[in-house]
Amino acid sequence: MTLPGWLERGLADLFPHAADHRHPTLSARLAAAQQAHRPLRVKLGIDPTANSIHLGHTILYRKLRAFQDAGHTAVVIIGDCTARIGDPTGKSATRPQLSAQEVEENARTYLEQLGPILDFVTPGRLEIHRNSTWLTKLDLTQVIGLLGTATVGQMLAKEDFANRYGRGAAIALHEFLYPLLQGYDSVMVKADVELGGTDQKFNVAMGRDLQRRFGQPPQFGLLLPILTGTDGVQKMSKSLGNTIGLQEDPLTTYSKLEKVADAVVDDYITLLTDVDPATMPKDPRQRQKAMALEVTASLHGREAAQAAQASAATLVMTPQASAAEAQVPEARLEAIWDWATPIPAYQLLHGVFFKTRAGVNSTSEARRRIQGGALRLDGQKLTDPQRALSKDELEGKVLQLGKKTFCRLVG
Amino acid sequence: MTLPGWLERGLADLFPHAADHRHPTLSARLAAAQQAHRPLRVKLGIDPTANSIHLGHTILYRKLRAFQDAGHTAVVIIGDCTARIGDPTGKSATRPQLSAQEVEENARTYLEQLGPILDFVTPGRLEIHRNSTWLTKLDLTQVIGLLGTATVGQMLAKEDFANRYGRGAAIALHEFLYPLLQGYDSVMVKADVELGGTDQKFNVAMGRDLQRRFGQPPQFGLLLPILTGTDGVQKMSKSLGNTIGLQEDPLTTYSKLEKVADAVVDDYITLLTDVDPATMPKDPRQRQKAMALEVTASLHGREAAQAAQASAATLVMTPQASAAEAQVPEARLEAIWDWATPIPAYQLLHGVFFKTRAGVNSTSEARRRIQGGALRLDGQKLTDPQRALSKDELEGKVLQLGKKTFCRLVG
Repeated sequence: MTLPGWLERGLADLFPHAADHRHPTLSARLAAAQQAHRPLRVKLGIDPTANSIHLGHTILYRKLRAFQDAGHTAVVIIGDCTARIGDPTGKSATRPQLSAQEVEENARTYLEQLGPILDFVTPGRLEIHRNSTWLTKLDLTQVIGLLGTATVGQMLAKEDFANRYGRGAAIALHEFLYPLLQGYDSVMVKADVELGGTDQKFNVAMGRDLQRRFGQPPQFGLLLPILTGTDGVQKMSKSLGNTIGLQEDPLTTYSKLEKVADAVVDDYITLLTDVDPATMPKDPRQRQKAMALEVTASLHGREAAQAAQASAATLVMTPQASAAEAQVPEARLEAIWDWATPIPAYQLLHGVFFKTRAGVNSTSEARRRIQGGALRLDGQKLTDPQRALSKDELEGKVLQLGKKTFCRLVG
Repeated sequence: MTLPGWLERGLADLFPHAADHRHPTLSARLAAAQQAHRPLRVKLGIDPTANSIHLGHTILYRKLRAFQDAGHTAVVIIGDCTARIGDPTGKSATRPQLSAQEVEENARTYLEQLGPILDFVTPGRLEIHRNSTWLTKLDLTQVIGLLGTATVGQMLAKEDFANRYGRGAAIALHEFLYPLLQGYDSVMVKADVELGGTDQKFNVAMGRDLQRRFGQPPQFGLLLPILTGTDGVQKMSKSLGNTIGLQEDPLTTYSKLEKVADAVVDDYITLLTDVDPATMPKDPRQRQKAMALEVTASLHGREAAQAAQASAATLVMTPQASAAEAQVPEARLEAIWDWATPIPAYQLLHGVFFKTRAGVNSTSEARRRIQGGALRLDGQKLTDPQRALSKDELEGKVLQLGKKTFCRLVG
């Protein structure tokens, strides 16, 4: 039996791989579920220690959506319990201790961003659980029972523990418990499949072990690649500044995508869109633009994506000798913001010049440049980065950064 | 400041050792407690997975009694919680999972045997706690907090874990939790001192760490040697069959003690009696008998010990050609049992011939020999090991084992 195309697309790993006398294959379980008119339960864990989602995260949610569209149940688990406990040693930056309220706000913001990706509407297609529901009920006997299912050797074989132990870095004992708690989540939701990045293989396998101990058929692990960032080199990660966030506007999104390294364009097509790569343009520049359009459309809708593409085309600037000589490019204000409220000057600067050679790569850089006196609007210096600007004030005027960079703002 | 003699007697280790700028010495804490009319709280943990106590255990209880006699509080902790949890992997013979009732019965039997050793009577000198009182109340957050206080490196530095990890033997994760729970006991009872064998140094130090985390002055560790068994070679341990149990009768106790290896006689005097070694006979045989008398007296009272010594002197048997030729030795029935009830034949055989060359080293061996037809009473074969025998039936008769071993039973 083979797996459906939507399921296989972009897969980095699937385990257990093949039928042997002990395990059914995933395709067999899919077939059995279909015959029994029972949807599979597809688990995906969310760590609510942060609240902004970038494209790297969406790979998993897109796969989850594909399961939903095939009639299965997405089981999203918010790891609120462990986020609230945090790291008792206080040494781990990735496990800060958060209040119940912070965790809940993060979870809410996180879920809101998944609006365009997951199917929140069709009955039976989505369950959202907070693991505090069952983890806070564990008593000492149960925790010891969980700990007893794994050995020190197993844990130290896990890659990141092995590395840290090998170089003599401290591993606090509670860190060994977290993979087991994640595995226990699989038991509690009776997962058939768990989705994760390739770095989650150990934890997903832990879930299989625990399900077996609790007399459940063990889940299948479906691992997807870790997305390479806009730099084309390192994994997409907030701390590396190479992300495209789901909260970024369409123009920024499109402009960043249009510039990613050639080497990752095909990965982006496979992992972040539903289009058949064979139907995409062969020319590298055209293929990249087509990818940028598709990915932006998947996040913000096709209309906004097309507007962003049109706007970005006018924003390719070159240094000019003076304003008078310049063939001034245009920036379409509506493609960048919705203008429900005025925007501060620094956001204007950042939004318009972000993708140009002007090098305003961050909002803090934009503030600095404005405070340094580099911004003019129709020749008038603007020195307050917070100065609120409405669309009416800006339309038709020329925005100037330093001596050589100009842009005409159009409606 | 120096420590009192009763405290220093037999000590293998005391830590922290000396005054440095961070730690007071134990003698300073003793002095401060005295000045404040506050007794020290001296913790000793009991593992209720077994219920028979042997002389090896009494070293610690004798030291605990010495603290009681000096006005301090003995804080005995019954590890019922961990005994009930046992070893979830089922691999550890030393941590069987016991029912609450079994644990409670073990604890009761254990405490009863301590009757002659500890002061159960004087008000304020003894507290008995079951650690289930506080451990069953721990929730996941607290357990993670405890786990977070120690690192994998620390645990793997512990000798028995290091050995097992080194030779590739499995260490289940929950085993790392047990030393922390033992340490948490120290926090809950606010121990000033914890007593333990030299193999407990790691666990006692864990208690110090945890007390510091909970804002308490850390306890002192007072470690006593592990007693060598009757073989004079290996530590006294039930599984090695070299123990002297507190439930054994005075004659058996005395007879075993009289035969221990010369090399350990002085250790036995120091660790198991209160007498000044300088006042004991210098001749090795006499010194051994004197030691055997003192230790037996400490357990069973001086009168019973003296009776046992007298009786043992008559029980030195040699193989004989026949009953007619034999110079039949005597066994004093009253020195061996109290005769409140009749005793089964196998116990008679075991009690009388235990220490002889006849080689009836266990009650199961005694049963086998009786079933094999080796036992006669005044020439009459006795083949039922359970056959109940009263003192009246036995007095004056000759007990015969096989063809060559005889003994006259006297009142």
